[in-house]
Amino acid sequence: MFLARVYVTLKPTVNDPQGKTILGGLKTLGFDLATEVRAGKYLEIKLSSPERTLAEAAVEEMCRKLLANPVIESYRYEVEEVIPRS
Amino acid sequence: MFLARVYVTLKPTVNDPQGKTILGGLKTLGFDLATEVRAGKYLEIKLSSPERTLAEAAVEEMCRKLLANPVIESYRYEVEEVIPRS
Repeated sequence: MFLARVYVTLKPTVNDPQGKTILGGLKTLGFDLATEVRAGKYLEIKLSSPERTLAEAAVEEMCRKLLANPVIESYRYEVEEVIPRS
Repeated sequence: MFLARVYVTLKPTVNDPQGKTILGGLKTLGFDLATEVRAGKYLEIKLSSPERTLAEAAVEEMCRKLLANPVIESYRYEVEEVIPRS
């Protein structure tokens, strides 16, 4: 059993209205320290794979095919072995 | 200058329709390895703080006040010093 943590972020040149709105909210609350916010997605995916290489290959393909839009987003992921609770 | 990476996830007992929909999409695409998906938010926040402790305290307060809903979400964050490009 593996757990993949996937981080999907907008590419740096892509406009991020959600991040701008959050930054506006932070400023309104008085957090003047904040200068930029970029919003992204975080996914935890459990995989019933016998092997790490198989799990990693599957996650790479999932990102390309469904989880990220490669035109405007980039992604990275970590795959970690977990012991299922019996 | 500091960069905070904030991860906001739904608490384990909270229903996650977005994660369930992504899992359905993965199954439809033939990724039978995937057994569970939990969806969350990932935020990168730049802070113009002279000190790490100040930046960390600000991020903690941002999470409590705006970024996460403490009733249904949990959060964690990392704060890293970055050198601004001149």
